[in-house]
Amino acid sequence: MLADVIPSINEIRSDELQGKTVMVIDVLRATSTITTALANGSSGVIPVETVCRAKQYQSADQEILLGGERFCKKINGFDLGNSPLEYGTDIVKDKRIVLTTTNGTRAIQKSIKGSQVIAACFLNIDACIQFALESKKDVAIVCSGTQDRFSLEDGLCAGLLIQRLSEADPKLVCNDFATAMRAAYLQMAEHLEEVLMSSDNGRRMCKIGFEADIRFCARLNEYSVVPILNGQMLTPYRF
Amino acid sequence: MLADVIPSINEIRSDELQGKTVMVIDVLRATSTITTALANGSSGVIPVETVCRAKQYQSADQEILLGGERFCKKINGFDLGNSPLEYGTDIVKDKRIVLTTTNGTRAIQKSIKGSQVIAACFLNIDACIQFALESKKDVAIVCSGTQDRFSLEDGLCAGLLIQRLSEADPKLVCNDFATAMRAAYLQMAEHLEEVLMSSDNGRRMCKIGFEADIRFCARLNEYSVVPILNGQMLTPYRF
Repeated sequence: MLADVIPSINEIRSDELQGKTVMVIDVLRATSTITTALANGSSGVIPVETVCRAKQYQSADQEILLGGERFCKKINGFDLGNSPLEYGTDIVKDKRIVLTTTNGTRAIQKSIKGSQVIAACFLNIDACIQFALESKKDVAIVCSGTQDRFSLEDGLCAGLLIQRLSEADPKLVCNDFATAMRAAYLQMAEHLEEVLMSSDNGRRMCKIGFEADIRFCARLNEYSVVPILNGQMLTPYRF
Repeated sequence: MLADVIPSINEIRSDELQGKTVMVIDVLRATSTITTALANGSSGVIPVETVCRAKQYQSADQEILLGGERFCKKINGFDLGNSPLEYGTDIVKDKRIVLTTTNGTRAIQKSIKGSQVIAACFLNIDACIQFALESKKDVAIVCSGTQDRFSLEDGLCAGLLIQRLSEADPKLVCNDFATAMRAAYLQMAEHLEEVLMSSDNGRRMCKIGFEADIRFCARLNEYSVVPILNGQMLTPYRF
């Protein structure tokens, strides 16, 4: 099996995703929020790039919830922000959600050439590995990053995915970036929450009161659901 | 002190280099070759982007040596390839060299907005650190990579530079990519030569007979010279 890690959105080359299982990571917070929403019973999450597009969905169907952020903050007029802690069962069960975030939803949109596109984070890491192994395809792991730049938390999550894949397949062949991320993860694995707190995004989020989000997003295997892109919508894939 | 690591050439944003000490890394092999050439007595290395531009220099001055590669191989009509082992004292002493390589010379050209631009590699790591500390400026470390992509050997060299800088300045502030590279270096430090051999460039170079180059380029502190860009030419800075 081949597994490449792509450092940030502007490094995505769509033609290289064809035929692959694409795992999109935005630990803080889009893919953590999507995973939590589906684990808590949402029927689907539709990632869109703009606020305008999100509002069009709700105009057409009042039952839809609008979620998202710009620069870590909830969008005016939206039902929910981008904190996974807002997406409890009481709020999201059986609801469809349209989500727009600064980086994660853009990364998903840019990954649609993949054979299958799933949303990965620390919360569902082993489920994503199981999915990738069962699909028997090569893997591309996309780190969403922040404003077209690498984000540490996404890189470390990619590193853990590579580590788990290589445990399952000792013949796994990686690109250089995957090898570096795996090494960085192994070096930092015992202090993951602390590392996330001190990352660029972590420091920014702590300043505006989202420390609890970071602690939550650093948890491993909280859920066994894999959000998988079906047409426009991410729906829950369970084993 | 601030220290950022830039993953590859197409991530360089020139305006962000202003006022900084810029360290350009191309371990395999441009900056290792430049460092070796200057350590062995060359009076200067002029990095140019094209073969045509290199030949113009030699037409104007027959004493100039032409060195370089395209896809790891010596260029037709050139005096030297891009192996540091070719740049011995008997060949390069008191000579000026025009060098064109696939990635390293492009990275140097794209870094000229820096306050000072130096060429870094494992061979002169501590000299580069001493230079950076004495200059008392913020630092930008540019990984040349390969064909606009991240290369492991450049990332690990950047990680070692960050580690040394943070030992000297415990208040060093890094970007996320620098933090990741430092962690990757610390994880792999004891097997550096082996890691370089198994990197994308390492495997490619081993296949065409450059294994000795990789072993040489993995050595720490072979030289105490810092190649520094003065106008068009890298000249030796010694302490």
